[in-house]
Amino acid sequence: MLGEYLENVRKKSPLVHNITNYVTVNDVANIILACGASPIMSDEPDDVEDITSICVALNINIGTLRKRSIESMHLAAKKAASLGHILVLDPVGAGASTLRTTTAASLLEEVSFTLIRGNVSELKALALGSRSTKGVDADAADVVTDENLDQMVNFAKTYAKAADCVIAMTGAIDLVANASSCYVIRNGRKEMSSITGTGCQLSGLSAAFLAANPEHPLEAAAAAVCTMGLAGEIGYSYMHPEDGNSTYRNRIIDAVYNMNGSTLDKGAKYEIR
Amino acid sequence: MLGEYLENVRKKSPLVHNITNYVTVNDVANIILACGASPIMSDEPDDVEDITSICVALNINIGTLRKRSIESMHLAAKKAASLGHILVLDPVGAGASTLRTTTAASLLEEVSFTLIRGNVSELKALALGSRSTKGVDADAADVVTDENLDQMVNFAKTYAKAADCVIAMTGAIDLVANASSCYVIRNGRKEMSSITGTGCQLSGLSAAFLAANPEHPLEAAAAAVCTMGLAGEIGYSYMHPEDGNSTYRNRIIDAVYNMNGSTLDKGAKYEIR
Amino acid sequence: MLGEYLENVRKKSPLVHNITNYVTVNDVANIILACGASPIMSDEPDDVEDITSICVALNINIGTLRKRSIESMHLAAKKAASLGHILVLDPVGAGASTLRTTTAASLLEEVSFTLIRGNVSELKALALGSRSTKGVDADAADVVTDENLDQMVNFAKTYAKAADCVIAMTGAIDLVANASSCYVIRNGRKEMSSITGTGCQLSGLSAAFLAANPEHPLEAAAAAVCTMGLAGEIGYSYMHPEDGNSTYRNRIIDAVYNMNGSTLDKGAKYEIR
Repeated sequence: MLGEYLENVRKKSPLVHNITNYVTVNDVANIILACGASPIMSDEPDDVEDITSICVALNINIGTLRKRSIESMHLAAKKAASLGHILVLDPVGAGASTLRTTTAASLLEEVSFTLIRGNVSELKALALGSRSTKGVDADAADVVTDENLDQMVNFAKTYAKAADCVIAMTGAIDLVANASSCYVIRNGRKEMSSITGTGCQLSGLSAAFLAANPEHPLEAAAAAVCTMGLAGEIGYSYMHPEDGNSTYRNRIIDAVYNMNGSTLDKGAKYEIR
Repeated sequence: MLGEYLENVRKKSPLVHNITNYVTVNDVANIILACGASPIMSDEPDDVEDITSICVALNINIGTLRKRSIESMHLAAKKAASLGHILVLDPVGAGASTLRTTTAASLLEEVSFTLIRGNVSELKALALGSRSTKGVDADAADVVTDENLDQMVNFAKTYAKAADCVIAMTGAIDLVANASSCYVIRNGRKEMSSITGTGCQLSGLSAAFLAANPEHPLEAAAAAVCTMGLAGEIGYSYMHPEDGNSTYRNRIIDAVYNMNGSTLDKGAKYEIR
Repeated sequence: MLGEYLENVRKKSPLVHNITNYVTVNDVANIILACGASPIMSDEPDDVEDITSICVALNINIGTLRKRSIESMHLAAKKAASLGHILVLDPVGAGASTLRTTTAASLLEEVSFTLIRGNVSELKALALGSRSTKGVDADAADVVTDENLDQMVNFAKTYAKAADCVIAMTGAIDLVANASSCYVIRNGRKEMSSITGTGCQLSGLSAAFLAANPEHPLEAAAAAVCTMGLAGEIGYSYMHPEDGNSTYRNRIIDAVYNMNGSTLDKGAKYEIR
């Protein structure tokens, strides 16, 4: 059951180094704290190797790239890889600009990531070298549905095998796959897309889950995805008519803060293919 | 009526590129989502032209300038202008430092903005080349009042004509003007000034409104200003005695999220001069 | 009584220049507004001297250092010192990386700070030149307890004397000391450590309190520390079972917003040694 992976985060409280965009960084820090782990941020080339060395996981998010932060991503990734740390990549906007696509691609070439977490269009841009991404959100042509589920599960497994890591492809239906197995997850609510950074938050959360469960990256990533989606459901249940996306953002993080393994086990909605 | 301009944002869901300060960027993203549009942030010279090309509006906010972000502003502004996009400038702290004043001035020289949104002292600094701005908030000597209203309406129209764009000059009374007409808007509450970034948020919101209503920039800007002020009134009506500026921030964004054209039409308080 | 120091902030509304990390910057701005002061952020070398000149206090936080922001810290600190401004240093992560430790040390060599605010391990790293800091939070070996209180009070006074400034060493028990006196403060709750940036917020708040009470830096810093801790207690009293760390963050800032001198005087829990 997935609940134990969450419990392990609370027990071990892993320290996660984040090189992440400045739009959603505060929420990423707070959701990492909410699940029982600790965040630290640093994106200066002269600082990142020291910082990543005291952590057990590195979460790289390319949402607002800068020349020096790209240099930091490479330095930190190599250091973290050499230390056997968990490495998570969130390729925000891959496919939407050349810089984003090539930065993600060059990081993937340089080191072995443990997990790539993105929406369908971002992962397609990386997997297929396509340029079809429209902005940072999954668009209609790039959505996992019940109709195309078999095909998308196959895509996720195929890309996981090619990239030699776990893939978390999130949207209305979430797929978490390695080369041989795929979790099809149906937690979450559509209103979550009206909040900036739920994807970024999930990547940070995933880094914490994998860091606390390094022997089970597939299951830990699935647990993180279910935790985020279930938090979206629980948080929504406390919304009042006057509440909107800003309050919802708080309610989701709050729901992660209050979640335990048993709640997660009861609320997780998934099948394995 | 102004409500249709909000409804158009929800229908068209324009993608808005923001080069904005890192203090309030998360709230800017969430309020753009709250009104039904989509935000994307990028401020790296190697990235901005690609990103702005997939958008329909560019919102430039000079709140925390950096050498490279200034370069990005120029690159993105030229690209956006060449594509016929909506261009919004928020000259945060113009008049408070040489760098801010000259950056705003050089952007205004280089391209035609659709809208400049600032407080009285910032706009005076740009219009008059003065250095009288004390910080980033309107100060007592620089406030629109019923006593100086005729004079300030005239200033707004005159500057709108000189700059060849729409001017939104916000404070206790908001003025939204082009060369010939001026909306005098009396929505909002004084407590909004105890939240960081309500001005930045309004600039992002305005970019979304103008992007969805490109043929009516004056009316769209007035609708955005009324939406923000009315959200301040509605949000405040849900405050409890123990709530303060942090909760109020959430309530305002929530109120935008829940607002529709009919609510805006009923709540907007303005006259046209 | 400490309440008057808070009242002075509300009366004088000092403008505080912050060069601070991008993780918690929005909360720092909102808590400075909550206590009645005004924040302004700028970290570009070409901008900081102008900006710091219109302020009365400078708050430097090294949480996410960058090459150019370090240059800005030195420029702004020298300018602020030459103008007789309040200078606050928050050495986030000193001891955790060479860059952070040396940046804090070189700033302390260059100018006289009015206040250094950090956790025990950060201050030990600066005072002892040690490298024992594990991340940015006080760890078990570095916590002030009733058992080691005499020793830690002595450490705080000794370091305050050596650094010739006020020291605020925060954790479960907070110590605010100059060379001869030490406030031992027992406000706050352990749940505050599950929110990112309560330390950063306290440093911003302290800068505002010292700016409004420049003749009483020890007492003003103690008042800021009590205000933050008491806000943590009051904010917690309004939490519902479904609330978590994200809502708690808002409640703490809200509680500062609603606090007056009388509330602070009644709720402050301290002794002077």
